[in-house]
Amino acid sequence: MRTLKLTVQYLGTRYQGWQVQPNRRTVQGRLEQALGKFLSEPIRIVGAGRTDSGVHARGQVASFTTVSGIPLRGILLGVNTLLPADIRIIRVEEAPPGFHARHDAVSKDYAYRFSTATVLSPFLAQTVHAVRGSLEIPRMVEAASHFLGEQDLSAFCGPEGRRKYTRRVVTVSQLIAEPEGVWAYQVSASGFLQYLVRTIVGTLFEVGRGKLDPAAIPAILASKDRRRAGPTASPVGLTLERVQYPVVTAILATPEGV
Amino acid sequence: MRTLKLTVQYLGTRYQGWQVQPNRRTVQGRLEQALGKFLSEPIRIVGAGRTDSGVHARGQVASFTTVSGIPLRGILLGVNTLLPADIRIIRVEEAPPGFHARHDAVSKDYAYRFSTATVLSPFLAQTVHAVRGSLEIPRMVEAASHFLGEQDLSAFCGPEGRRKYTRRVVTVSQLIAEPEGVWAYQVSASGFLQYLVRTIVGTLFEVGRGKLDPAAIPAILASKDRRRAGPTASPVGLTLERVQYPVVTAILATPEGV
Repeated sequence: MRTLKLTVQYLGTRYQGWQVQPNRRTVQGRLEQALGKFLSEPIRIVGAGRTDSGVHARGQVASFTTVSGIPLRGILLGVNTLLPADIRIIRVEEAPPGFHARHDAVSKDYAYRFSTATVLSPFLAQTVHAVRGSLEIPRMVEAASHFLGEQDLSAFCGPEGRRKYTRRVVTVSQLIAEPEGVWAYQVSASGFLQYLVRTIVGTLFEVGRGKLDPAAIPAILASKDRRRAGPTASPVGLTLERVQYPVVTAILATPEGV
Repeated sequence: MRTLKLTVQYLGTRYQGWQVQPNRRTVQGRLEQALGKFLSEPIRIVGAGRTDSGVHARGQVASFTTVSGIPLRGILLGVNTLLPADIRIIRVEEAPPGFHARHDAVSKDYAYRFSTATVLSPFLAQTVHAVRGSLEIPRMVEAASHFLGEQDLSAFCGPEGRRKYTRRVVTVSQLIAEPEGVWAYQVSASGFLQYLVRTIVGTLFEVGRGKLDPAAIPAILASKDRRRAGPTASPVGLTLERVQYPVVTAILATPEGV
């Protein structure tokens, strides 16, 4: 029995999120279908991040076990031919027995892209959220910095998130200017909670519009009261960029070679 | 009665081309619907290039007449709110009476994007054609240069194209390296013909694969025999980049102002 680790990219537009649900088109479902067909055995995968409907990934990680002895590069090339063009496996690695893409992850990076352009290019519209009106970016930069460090994030997550342990270590929380007038809010943390990034971003928009003071963020965090944070922003702008692990895997297949 | 000139961007993936056809989702159809609704009068537009199903545009131009006195910026902002996110008007201009987006165009620029990456990113897959196997780019560069100048292009167009006058002046025909391992074949000409860019590109792929000699292009052009050119390449990689006119219009509205 081998344990394999996949790195996956997808454009989430056409999917009802990552996680398999009956009669829904999901990324996990499509991957399990393609892997099962290629490996001729039922495959169940575990994803590092359960991305919501419409959310994208440039570096989602998934793990699964298989009895197949097919070389890594054969799996990479073969399974991709069975996937739609908006989902691609970009790397396949041998992982240590028992490796679990979600439990073993030590850090994840998300980016939320938005634009205040009056007319947003159709070439950006699937991955960039179009904000109406203008935003004061310096205020948002200040507000974003208040999320850094160890935080109880219960005021900034959905009901599923609040049922869990809600303390997380946030290591990156910043706004970066990208080409074509796009802003990216980048956030890295030891773990995420339901709607966390979208709630932080919805709150940053309130700050950018002058409806909320940047200095109010620590008090909202301390209140643990979801009603004091801003609305949950649209999923369109959100991308899971990278998942990090402490384990070092020795063998991998990428498009460039074995 | 005013004559207006629109510059339009679209992601062609979901559309069966530019031109209105009964019971088909077309870009022209969606634009006419949105303009008609906003201006409260039936609107018929003329496009500079009748792009095929799946083909994109960053600078399509369309013209129409209206009795409406609504300011240009009002039309720009208002009509965009009635369009799906994959179609956007990026500029509205007053044009001289009688201006015709197709007849008055003096030159058009197209780009055909392709990649030989083993795994093509889902974020590129809608606008970049994934080529199987490798291509010898220097051979393709040489072949591309043979299209420059005044040419009878009947060997490189579809049946609709061959019914027309087939001589065109090609002013740009080159391969350019873009970011993320993408190649763009750029071609500018006084006019285009049905499937022209896709047939040139399909032929360049034959050259890149070593199946056709770059020096054979002049003889294929001279033969006027479509069977001697390569297959018609997929529409996915094709984008209408720009349309040029000799007329100077005085008033225009862009996202930045009136």
